Amino acid sequence: MLRLEYDGARFAGSQLQTNALTVQAVLEDAIEKATEERARVAFAGRTDAGTHARGQVGSFLSHSRLDIETMRRALNAWLPPDVAVRDVAESLLDFDVRRDALRRHYQYLIDNQAARSALERERAWHVNVSLDVEAMAVAARGVIGRHDFAAFAAPVETTGASTVRDLQTFEVRRRRQAITCDVVANAFLRHQVRRMVGALVEVGKGALSPDDFTRLLDGPPASAGPTAPAHGLYLMRVDYERELFSQTLDSEPALC
Amino acid sequence: MLRLEYDGARFAGSQLQTNALTVQAVLEDAIEKATEERARVAFAGRTDAGTHARGQVGSFLSHSRLDIETMRRALNAWLPPDVAVRDVAESLLDFDVRRDALRRHYQYLIDNQAARSALERERAWHVNVSLDVEAMAVAARGVIGRHDFAAFAAPVETTGASTVRDLQTFEVRRRRQAITCDVVANAFLRHQVRRMVGALVEVGKGALSPDDFTRLLDGPPASAGPTAPAHGLYLMRVDYERELFSQTLDSEPALC
Repeated sequence: MLRLEYDGARFAGSQLQTNALTVQAVLEDAIEKATEERARVAFAGRTDAGTHARGQVGSFLSHSRLDIETMRRALNAWLPPDVAVRDVAESLLDFDVRRDALRRHYQYLIDNQAARSALERERAWHVNVSLDVEAMAVAARGVIGRHDFAAFAAPVETTGASTVRDLQTFEVRRRRQAITCDVVANAFLRHQVRRMVGALVEVGKGALSPDDFTRLLDGPPASAGPTAPAHGLYLMRVDYERELFSQTLDSEPALC
Repeated sequence: MLRLEYDGARFAGSQLQTNALTVQAVLEDAIEKATEERARVAFAGRTDAGTHARGQVGSFLSHSRLDIETMRRALNAWLPPDVAVRDVAESLLDFDVRRDALRRHYQYLIDNQAARSALERERAWHVNVSLDVEAMAVAARGVIGRHDFAAFAAPVETTGASTVRDLQTFEVRRRRQAITCDVVANAFLRHQVRRMVGALVEVGKGALSPDDFTRLLDGPPASAGPTAPAHGLYLMRVDYERELFSQTLDSEPALC
């Protein structure tokens, strides 16, 4: 099992695709270089093109005899600079990082100041009108709980499988010019966080009331939004019944 | 006058060079697009290739009748995404952003954890052995004051002009896995901050004592170091007798 950090800017998402650079592709290549075995990587959460991760969890099957510390160093030596393995641990064969995950924690970062930022250009969504964070926080609390989130799903995901999810946390906070939206759920629909944040910004602008926001849940599939851009979104952490890695992950980014 | 933020990764430094992309070059091009006048830009501080700025100050002479808010928007529209104008103000003709600056504030950011970071790869110096921040802080305090900093200068700057500078602040702090080094002086020699931080990391590793660090001041020109990499360094602020811009600058990055 691996805990991964990556900068999503250069990738067409986490999952393998033909003719596109993905996190899975560079990771499987690095594993082959480090262990001389071709392996298939599974991720706990799927991230879109442009979306970042500070605590993605991945796993692969290996016969390598490298100890976990050497494995971490070898993978980091072969990975490109925008993907990093932060921790490595061994697991039982029947453990599944995706199926056995209890909760996913995402953070969405909004840069809410008049002038755009150069250093944060690919790390936060720049919204240049002042947002009412109190109204956004109230609206967010209104959708916490077990609901059918089909209205916030991507169109592709509204056919078939259940769209009920258990949203456990949705906190909106201002810290100087930044607004952070922290969301935790058992699982998320595709684009759910980005659509929830997109609609929340409409609340912040006064175009929707907190009650309007809650009522978006009753709309038809994929009707809520707009969809916030991918580059403000971070997969922060995936929780399991027990800690997978010897080092616990800081709840805040290390360098902030 | 402009307050500028930039990501230094793509630039061969702040100052104009033939056959190299510099901050000055893209700024002079954006000014020409926005005002239809070719202007020469002056900066308060010179930054090396790879070094970032959150509060660089620049100036240029213009006959444009654009108001300052429109000027800010027009320049940002023409500048590449990795350079941003945060504030614009008018000044008297005899004001010189370089000569009239009282103090420059730089911050150096060290990412001090075992595994490298993907998201911070161009924003902090990754030092993978645990550093003794207390020893570093003591060493830093030992060189505060008015000294000849020739030992910490780049070789090129040790001939001719005075190498005496007044170092007013040198604070080293740990915040989780990050170590920040804040330095303020009337002015700095070329590479001075990077050489001071490079030697300070030797103190953090135990290779130099705080007293050894202070004694580096007595060495021959350009003898101290090693030179810390440029990509951990940020020009944070330039101080003048009065505030140049209507908005005061946060002492900390907006998104941290």
